[in-house]
Amino acid sequence: MKTLETTPRRDGFRMPGEFEPHLGTYIIWPERPDNWRLGGKPAQKVFVEVATAISRYEPVTVCANANQYANAREMLPEEVRVVEISNDDAWVRDCGPTFVTNGKEIRGVDWVFNAWGGLYDGLYFPWDKDDAVAQKICEIERRARYKLYEFVLEGGSIHVDGEGTLVTTEECLLSEGRNPHLTKEEIEEVLKEYLNLEKIIWLPRGIYLDETNGHVDNIFSFTAPGEAVLAWTEDKDDPQYEISRAALDVLERERDAKGRKINVHKLLLPKPILITAEESEGVDAVNGTLPRMEGDRLAASYANFYIANGAVFLPLFNDPNDEAAIKTLQSLFPGREVVGIYAREILLGGGNIHCITQQVPAPCCDGEKV
Amino acid sequence: MKTLETTPRRDGFRMPGEFEPHLGTYIIWPERPDNWRLGGKPAQKVFVEVATAISRYEPVTVCANANQYANAREMLPEEVRVVEISNDDAWVRDCGPTFVTNGKEIRGVDWVFNAWGGLYDGLYFPWDKDDAVAQKICEIERRARYKLYEFVLEGGSIHVDGEGTLVTTEECLLSEGRNPHLTKEEIEEVLKEYLNLEKIIWLPRGIYLDETNGHVDNIFSFTAPGEAVLAWTEDKDDPQYEISRAALDVLERERDAKGRKINVHKLLLPKPILITAEESEGVDAVNGTLPRMEGDRLAASYANFYIANGAVFLPLFNDPNDEAAIKTLQSLFPGREVVGIYAREILLGGGNIHCITQQVPAPCCDGEKV
Repeated sequence: MKTLETTPRRDGFRMPGEFEPHLGTYIIWPERPDNWRLGGKPAQKVFVEVATAISRYEPVTVCANANQYANAREMLPEEVRVVEISNDDAWVRDCGPTFVTNGKEIRGVDWVFNAWGGLYDGLYFPWDKDDAVAQKICEIERRARYKLYEFVLEGGSIHVDGEGTLVTTEECLLSEGRNPHLTKEEIEEVLKEYLNLEKIIWLPRGIYLDETNGHVDNIFSFTAPGEAVLAWTEDKDDPQYEISRAALDVLERERDAKGRKINVHKLLLPKPILITAEESEGVDAVNGTLPRMEGDRLAASYANFYIANGAVFLPLFNDPNDEAAIKTLQSLFPGREVVGIYAREILLGGGNIHCITQQVPAPCCDGEKV
Repeated sequence: MKTLETTPRRDGFRMPGEFEPHLGTYIIWPERPDNWRLGGKPAQKVFVEVATAISRYEPVTVCANANQYANAREMLPEEVRVVEISNDDAWVRDCGPTFVTNGKEIRGVDWVFNAWGGLYDGLYFPWDKDDAVAQKICEIERRARYKLYEFVLEGGSIHVDGEGTLVTTEECLLSEGRNPHLTKEEIEEVLKEYLNLEKIIWLPRGIYLDETNGHVDNIFSFTAPGEAVLAWTEDKDDPQYEISRAALDVLERERDAKGRKINVHKLLLPKPILITAEESEGVDAVNGTLPRMEGDRLAASYANFYIANGAVFLPLFNDPNDEAAIKTLQSLFPGREVVGIYAREILLGGGNIHCITQQVPAPCCDGEKV
């Protein structure tokens, strides 16, 4: 696999919107017992459900550590490809490559991954296997790679419209554990150069208590160029209210790269979801890994959905707002099926369906928005 | 990846000759210190040389254990793809899949692998990672798989002409450590069913002291349908003489599946090559793994070459017969380059270039012999 010394912008490559056509989806198999309860067994069942559901719409590859390969292969349907890729945890959105295309070819962008904050406020140590995942996916896919050696970024901290606009959060990208050596302007410059962008929109913060330092993909998502959803609550006593309000203020004020106002649709959040005693007890308490304590509030949000060819995969929480979320997304994705998956077990690990998936865009279909 | 319950013969799939077009080549990265001297470092250099040479003619994928991935990636040129596949040693010819084709599609045959004789006279224990290599290669290649659950076979113990004929050795296929529950006729039946054959030719034995129980690929190879080479010596005092003589007698007597006499070309062996004290000392002496003792004779043979698209890769031993071997192969492969590689370090591990390679045939080119 070629490692390139140029940048995507210089080579005419851009990051497509997630709603553009895909070649397939990558997922990593969950197992670490200090993050997933009961040795990852309940989470594995939900990952199988997600992989199986997506594989009805596009090819899915699941990456497993060697020791879990046979079990993953056994549990997943044969349509899902299983490959060995060593990893520290199951968040391919964050440690996987960000693919860019010039309409004919795709290439990977391989950012530095430091487990959401490195030694400053990262969630576990070490993270060397995760940091090598992007390279290894590019190898399997036989795709050339742009490698950044000093710029920390997780895929979940950005969303793009495929037409020059990126949305992120200050909470994450300006955090002390990412790129404290760079100014906001310098960070914008790197993003513009490696994703071929003209406009960065900065939301102040992500979902309340999101352990990723407020990844944008848990609070906001583009559904099409000029169209987006924002996680929302009407409960003014909830700390989330001010966060969503501030994000909406930015989005209403800003214009995208094409000069459009972004049409923001509110996705009402589920009621606060807390870790139960049983759930907490199932997780190994290991020094250096973020603990899972009884009563801790989880960062549940319907915005953490994944857009695939012909379908959208949406986390459900067995909450009265589940139905409204499905309805909103169905209206925003008229050409796709909206598939809800009860995802509490993914949420317990610290993310959701968008966090555990990474699309490989189709190089052939540049410009044809689906 | 689909696991099929039928057989290649029933589905109209056959094993092509190695000289038919390839999609690419698989190699496994060597490392085990109880087989390769000095932690595998000298062998790794030669594997890099082989992978690099082949990659000039067809795509090469190198499979590495997780712990050696970064080193393999660093040492190999970027044209070579490196993937994680756990393994017990570096003999993909023997543990990898045997690919079959129907002219449109390729599929893998996944035999049982037991380290050349299992608990009876196998070369190391355990071999579970090797036994899973064929499945994992089929996964990466997205190829359906025929899985045998009770039939032990290594790819190096068979050679086919792609037109219905297979050549093997009694020493290997009738060995106590392979399929002692089956008669010779039953073994023939399995081979015919899974490789779509009409004729099995049994040479009595392989190269003298070959630790694989005399794999055919070290003594004999088809160079085209009806054309073959046989490792040979004129030294009647060498135990190899009787072995090669007996093989030639069989080949002169037999006819192939098409009723042709096989035109056998002799490949003169190098002079006996013995393990030096320095070479022996570099190998960990581990109970349960075949030892590498000073003065032991190695099973060196020019017949252990690999045929790729447009080239043949031949082991050289710094022996006066190197030149004759190159010349013979050049005359038998007029359309290909003959590339000699000094391969003592591979030989020290117990095999040679053919043993460390496994072709993925091209499904598109069935019938077009190259």
